[in-house]
Amino acid sequence: MSTKTSFINDDFLLENKYAEELYHISAERKPIIDYHCHLSSRQIAEDYCFRDITEMWLGGDHYKWRAMRGNGISEEYITGGAPSRLKFKKWAETVPYTMRNPLYHWTHLELSRVFGIYDVLNGDNADAVYDYCNEALRSSEFSARGLIKRFNVETICTTDDPLDDLKWHKIIREEQLGFKVLPTWRPDKIVAVENPIAFNSYVDKLSDVSGKRIVSYDDLLSAISIRHKFFEDMGCRLSDHGLDTFYAEEYDAERVDKIFRRIRSGNHIPSHDEIRLYKSVILIDLAKMDHASDWAQQFHVGPIRDNNRRMYEAIGPDTGFDAINDLNIAASGHRFFSALAYEDTLAKTILYNLNPKDNEVMASLAYTFNDGSTPGKMQYGAAWWFLDNENGIVRQLNTLSDFGLLGRFVGMLTDSRSFLSYTRHEYFRRILCNVLGKDIESGRLPISEMPFIHKLVNDISYENAVRYFGFR
Amino acid sequence: MSTKTSFINDDFLLENKYAEELYHISAERKPIIDYHCHLSSRQIAEDYCFRDITEMWLGGDHYKWRAMRGNGISEEYITGGAPSRLKFKKWAETVPYTMRNPLYHWTHLELSRVFGIYDVLNGDNADAVYDYCNEALRSSEFSARGLIKRFNVETICTTDDPLDDLKWHKIIREEQLGFKVLPTWRPDKIVAVENPIAFNSYVDKLSDVSGKRIVSYDDLLSAISIRHKFFEDMGCRLSDHGLDTFYAEEYDAERVDKIFRRIRSGNHIPSHDEIRLYKSVILIDLAKMDHASDWAQQFHVGPIRDNNRRMYEAIGPDTGFDAINDLNIAASGHRFFSALAYEDTLAKTILYNLNPKDNEVMASLAYTFNDGSTPGKMQYGAAWWFLDNENGIVRQLNTLSDFGLLGRFVGMLTDSRSFLSYTRHEYFRRILCNVLGKDIESGRLPISEMPFIHKLVNDISYENAVRYFGFR
Amino acid sequence: MSTKTSFINDDFLLENKYAEELYHISAERKPIIDYHCHLSSRQIAEDYCFRDITEMWLGGDHYKWRAMRGNGISEEYITGGAPSRLKFKKWAETVPYTMRNPLYHWTHLELSRVFGIYDVLNGDNADAVYDYCNEALRSSEFSARGLIKRFNVETICTTDDPLDDLKWHKIIREEQLGFKVLPTWRPDKIVAVENPIAFNSYVDKLSDVSGKRIVSYDDLLSAISIRHKFFEDMGCRLSDHGLDTFYAEEYDAERVDKIFRRIRSGNHIPSHDEIRLYKSVILIDLAKMDHASDWAQQFHVGPIRDNNRRMYEAIGPDTGFDAINDLNIAASGHRFFSALAYEDTLAKTILYNLNPKDNEVMASLAYTFNDGSTPGKMQYGAAWWFLDNENGIVRQLNTLSDFGLLGRFVGMLTDSRSFLSYTRHEYFRRILCNVLGKDIESGRLPISEMPFIHKLVNDISYENAVRYFGFR
Repeated sequence: MSTKTSFINDDFLLENKYAEELYHISAERKPIIDYHCHLSSRQIAEDYCFRDITEMWLGGDHYKWRAMRGNGISEEYITGGAPSRLKFKKWAETVPYTMRNPLYHWTHLELSRVFGIYDVLNGDNADAVYDYCNEALRSSEFSARGLIKRFNVETICTTDDPLDDLKWHKIIREEQLGFKVLPTWRPDKIVAVENPIAFNSYVDKLSDVSGKRIVSYDDLLSAISIRHKFFEDMGCRLSDHGLDTFYAEEYDAERVDKIFRRIRSGNHIPSHDEIRLYKSVILIDLAKMDHASDWAQQFHVGPIRDNNRRMYEAIGPDTGFDAINDLNIAASGHRFFSALAYEDTLAKTILYNLNPKDNEVMASLAYTFNDGSTPGKMQYGAAWWFLDNENGIVRQLNTLSDFGLLGRFVGMLTDSRSFLSYTRHEYFRRILCNVLGKDIESGRLPISEMPFIHKLVNDISYENAVRYFGFR
Repeated sequence: MSTKTSFINDDFLLENKYAEELYHISAERKPIIDYHCHLSSRQIAEDYCFRDITEMWLGGDHYKWRAMRGNGISEEYITGGAPSRLKFKKWAETVPYTMRNPLYHWTHLELSRVFGIYDVLNGDNADAVYDYCNEALRSSEFSARGLIKRFNVETICTTDDPLDDLKWHKIIREEQLGFKVLPTWRPDKIVAVENPIAFNSYVDKLSDVSGKRIVSYDDLLSAISIRHKFFEDMGCRLSDHGLDTFYAEEYDAERVDKIFRRIRSGNHIPSHDEIRLYKSVILIDLAKMDHASDWAQQFHVGPIRDNNRRMYEAIGPDTGFDAINDLNIAASGHRFFSALAYEDTLAKTILYNLNPKDNEVMASLAYTFNDGSTPGKMQYGAAWWFLDNENGIVRQLNTLSDFGLLGRFVGMLTDSRSFLSYTRHEYFRRILCNVLGKDIESGRLPISEMPFIHKLVNDISYENAVRYFGFR
Repeated sequence: MSTKTSFINDDFLLENKYAEELYHISAERKPIIDYHCHLSSRQIAEDYCFRDITEMWLGGDHYKWRAMRGNGISEEYITGGAPSRLKFKKWAETVPYTMRNPLYHWTHLELSRVFGIYDVLNGDNADAVYDYCNEALRSSEFSARGLIKRFNVETICTTDDPLDDLKWHKIIREEQLGFKVLPTWRPDKIVAVENPIAFNSYVDKLSDVSGKRIVSYDDLLSAISIRHKFFEDMGCRLSDHGLDTFYAEEYDAERVDKIFRRIRSGNHIPSHDEIRLYKSVILIDLAKMDHASDWAQQFHVGPIRDNNRRMYEAIGPDTGFDAINDLNIAASGHRFFSALAYEDTLAKTILYNLNPKDNEVMASLAYTFNDGSTPGKMQYGAAWWFLDNENGIVRQLNTLSDFGLLGRFVGMLTDSRSFLSYTRHEYFRRILCNVLGKDIESGRLPISEMPFIHKLVNDISYENAVRYFGFR
C-alpha cells in the first residue's frame, strides 16, 4: 500500500506545493484521451485476458528487451522459449540496473497502479511478485477492457492500415462500452515505394478492397479515397505517417504518373530520384484528403529501423533493433507544408521528431504555418519513443514553450502496444505539473495567475485534445 | 507599482543572495551598448512619437504575430485592417497562453519598465491598459529618444545596407544627443547572387552610388571599398552577415571573374556550384576589408527564411514565417576562417547560430582561431532570435563557458526593431547573475572570488563591449 | 590545507547528504582503472621527473593553450620561447577568466590534490605558487611513478601505433611496479588512405616490422595480424579508432584489392569513393581481429582536426586547433555494426562522440547491437574531450541512463597526456554521486535502494571496468 515513504507515493515527481496542488486538483482525475497508440482493437473487442504477467508485461515490449540484452541476458529469456516464470525473473533481475532509465519509473508505476504493489522489483522478490500478479490476473478487472476502465480512458485511437476492414472497431462501436475506440489512418505502405515488390502487392490488395482497377496514379488516388472515406465513416479523426525525413521535390503530374505506371508494370526498380518524387506527390495528395476530412495529420519523423540484420532475420521487425537517424529535415519540411498552405489544403498537423537535434527545427517549422483558423492548428507534439522519458518530456515542454504556446498543447499519448502504459499519462501529467510548479515557486510564473495555470493543466491533460480532434 | 510580491519585482529571476548582489551592484545600472539592432535611424533622427501602444508594441513584432496565429487569431487582427484597440485586445487575450514563452516575460518587463504597469496583462484588463498606455504616449518621455534615454543607452549600432546614404545617422551625429547611433555594414545583397535579377539591379545601384562602372569582379570590389570607407568615416565599427551556412570553396580568381561577368551580362542563371564559388570569394574579400578597417565582423548563421509562400506573397518578408535550418556548417566554417587566418586578415569576429545543434560547433570553431592579439578576438555570440529566451541564454552561457572564456564575452544585444526591447538587456543581465549566483551558492565558484565575479558581471554587461568594439 | 570553506573541500560538487555518503563510502578510495589515455610509456619506464611546474602543467596541454590565446596572450608565452616563470604567470593571469570552464575546476583540483595548495590561482600569487611547486617537484613523490601511486592507479592503458615496439612497456612489465601499464592498439594510420604518400610510407614500415612483403590487400591483413598478435601478447585488451564519421559502403573484395594495389604502386591518388571503400573494408577487418582477440574496441567519432593552417604549419598537430565536426553518422554507423553482428564478429564496443548532437544517436546505436553475451557489451562511452566538463558529463550520464543501463557503464578515463589529470576521475565520481544523490533526494530513486546505489557507484567507479576489460 502506498505511504508517504513509498517510492511511488502520492507526490511522486511533484517537488513543491504548487506542483502538488496543480496535479491533484487539475490533472489527476481527468479522463485519458489516448489519441495515438498501437493497441489491438481485437483484444479490446474480445476483452482479452492475459495468461500471465509475463505475457502482459514483457510480450512485445521491445523497450524491456533492449534493456535485458544490454544487461547480458540471453535471447532465450527475452523472445525465446524459456518458461514464463524464468523470463519474468530475468526481467526482475534487470530492473535495478534500469535505475534512471524510464523503465524504472514505468515499471513501478505500473506495478503500483495496476496491482497495488509498492515494493521495488528485483531478483529477490521476483517469484513472489510473479505469483501475486498471476493470481490477480484471474479477475476480470485485468482484462483489456478492465484495464481501460481502471485508467479512466475516454477515447482510444488505434493505428490501422488503410486496408484494414476495421471489423473489431465495428464490434466495439456496437457495444456501448463507455469509452470510444477509433481507427487512425496510417498509410505508410502506400508511401513505401522503395520496395516495389511489396508495394505492388499492397496496391493489388488495395485494388481488391476498393473495387478499383489501379493502373494510373489517378486510379491509385481514387482507390485510396474510397478507403479514406471508409475510415472517416468509422469515426477516424487522425492520420499518421512514419518517415525518415520529409519529401518535397518539385514534380509534374505526368512524370509521376509515368513512374507509377512503370512500377505497376512490375519490372521496374525505381531510382532514388523516382522514389523521392513519388513520395513527394503521394504525401501531398494524402495530406489533401486529411484536410478535406478535417482530420489532424501526424508526422513521426526520424527513426532508422531494423538495423540489426542478424536479429531481423531471426525474429523480425519491432523487436528492439531500431534507433535514431540523423537526416536533415528542415528544407524539405518547409517546402512540404508551404505547398499545402499555398493551396489552402493544410490540415491540423502535429509534428513529432525522434532525434532531439530536431526539436527546435520541428517546433519552429510548426509555428511557421499557423494561420489563425484553429488554436494550435499546427503544433509540436509530445516526446516520442526514445525521448519519452522525464528528460525528453521536459525538453519537449521547454521547446514547445520557447517556440510556441504551451497552453494550446494537445498533450500526451501512449504510442504503446500495452494496456499498462496508461500510467504514462500520469507520468506526463506529474512532470508537467512539476515544471509549472517550479516556475511558480521561482517567480517565473506569477502566483496571482494560479487559476489560469490550473486551467492550462486541465486543458493540456484533457480539454485541448477534446476540442482539437473533435471526436464524435 | 512594484512590490516584493509583484510578478516583475526587484529580484525577478535572481534566485539567491549572490545573484541579487551581483545584479544590483554590478549590472543593474550599467549603460547599454546595443551593438546590434534593427532600429530605424530615421525614427531616432525625427524623434518619432508613436500613435498608440498597438503601433509601438505590435507593429512589426513578428514574435507576437506568430504567437497570435498559433492562438487561433485571424490575420485581420494581426497584420490586417482591424482597429488598434481590437488588435491590442486580441494580443492581450493571447498573453496568458504565452506562459513560459519569452513573450510572457518580455511583455511584463516592458509594461513595468516603460509604463510602470505591474499587472499581468489579459483580455479583462486589455482596455484599461490600452487607454493608460495611450495616455502616457502623449508625453515626450515615450518618443524614440525618450525611450533611449530612459534605458540609459550609450551606443546603438543600427543595421544598414552598403548603399544607404546614412543621412539620418548624419543628422543624429550633429545633434549631440548624449548617446551614439552608428551604422553597421550588412552586405547581404552583395552576396545574394542566387537571384541574378535582383543582384544585377543591386550592382547597378552600387555602380551609381559609388560612381564606378562595374564590369569585372575587381570593379565590384573597388565599388564596395568606396562604400566600406564611407561607412568607416561614419563611425561604423561592425559588419554583419546573414547566412544559411558558411561558404568556402576552393576558387581561382579568373573563374570567379568569368562567372561574375556572365551574371552581369544579364542572361545567365548561375549554377549551384557557381553560386557557392561566388559566395566563397566575395565573403573572403568582404572579410578582408573588415580586417583592414579593424571592424568586428558578425556572422548570423542558420535561418531558413520566408517559408510560407502564401503569406510571403500576401504580406512580404519579416512577418513571422522564418524558421531554423539544419545545414552542416563545420567544414566550410573552418575552411573559411583558416583562409583568413592564413593570410593574417582575420578581423575580430563574433559567431551566432540559430540552430542549437550548432552551439558547440560554433563555440569550438571560434576558439580555433584566437591568436592572442585581442582578448576574446574570435568569440561565440549571444543567444539569437528563436534562442533569445532564458533556456537559450543559459545554454549559450554554458556553451561559451565550457568552450571558452565567459569573462571575455562582449555580452548582450537586442537585435530588435522595437525601442521597448532594451528590457532584454535587463533580462539577460538577470539571467547571467542568476547563473553565477547559483554556481557560487553550490560551491562551483569560490565565494572568496566575489570581487572578480563582480568585475566579470560588469565586464560582460558593459566594459568588454566598450573595449572590444572601440567606438569613437 | 583543506577546510570546509576551501573552494576545493571534501564535499566539492556534492550537494546533499546522499551524494556525500555515496562518494565518501563507495567512490573516493576506489583504485583508478585508466583504460584510455595518451601518457608516455617512456616517461613511466624512466620514472620521469619534471623540470618545473610549467613543463609539468602547461607543456602539451592544448586545453590551457586555447584558453590563453582567447585571453589575448601572445604565442610567445604559450608554445614560444618565453621563460618558464613568465609562461606560468600568463597562465595564472588567465585562470580567473576560465571561471565556469572545466579548466577552472581542473586547475584547482590538481593544485590541491598534488601540491596541497588550496588557494585560488591568479596573477598575484603566481610567483609564490610557481616557486612552491618547483620546490616540491624535487621530491620523488612527483615523478611519473610517484604521481601514479599518489592517485592509486591500478591499470593504465596507453595509446600506441601498431608499429610501436612497445619496448618501454616491456621494461615496465619487468619491474613489478604495483600498477599495470598496457598498450592500446590505435591503427589510425592503417586507415588514413586519403594521404597516399604518408600511407605508403607507413605500409612500407609495416612491411619491415612484420617481415611481410605487402603487395595485395591480403598481404596487408597478414602483416597487421602479426602486429595485432604482438600487442595481444603484450597484454593489450583494447583498440581505439579516431574517425570523422563511420564508413560502411558495400564492397567486393576484388575491387578493394585492386584499389589497394594501385595505391601501393605509388602513383595513384584515390578518389573519394575509393577512400570510403577502403576505409569501409579495413575497419571491418580490424574489427574482426579485435573480436577474435576478445578485445574491447573503441570508436572516437566527430572531430575536425588541424583546422588552422597558419598555426599547423608553425607548430604542428595537437596544439589546440581542433574542433567539433558535424557530419551525419547514423546510417553508416548502423550498417557497420550490423555487418559485424551478422557474421557474429562484433567485439565488445564503446562509442564516444564529440558533437553532442550525436549523443542520442550514439546511445541508441550502441543498444541496437547488444546481444546478451556480456553485460554492457556495446555501450555509450564517457564524455570526451570538449565534452569532458560537468555539463558534458551530466549529459552523457543522462543520455546513457535514458537509452541504456547506467549500472553497466565502465566509467571514466582521462584521455590525457598529463600525469596530473587523474583528478578527472575524482571529478567524474563526484559528479556521478551528485547526480544520483539529487535523484534520491527528489524521490526519483528510492531511498530503500541505497545499498544497490552504493553498488552501482562502486561498479561504475571500478568494478565494471575490471570485469569488462579482463586485464591479466
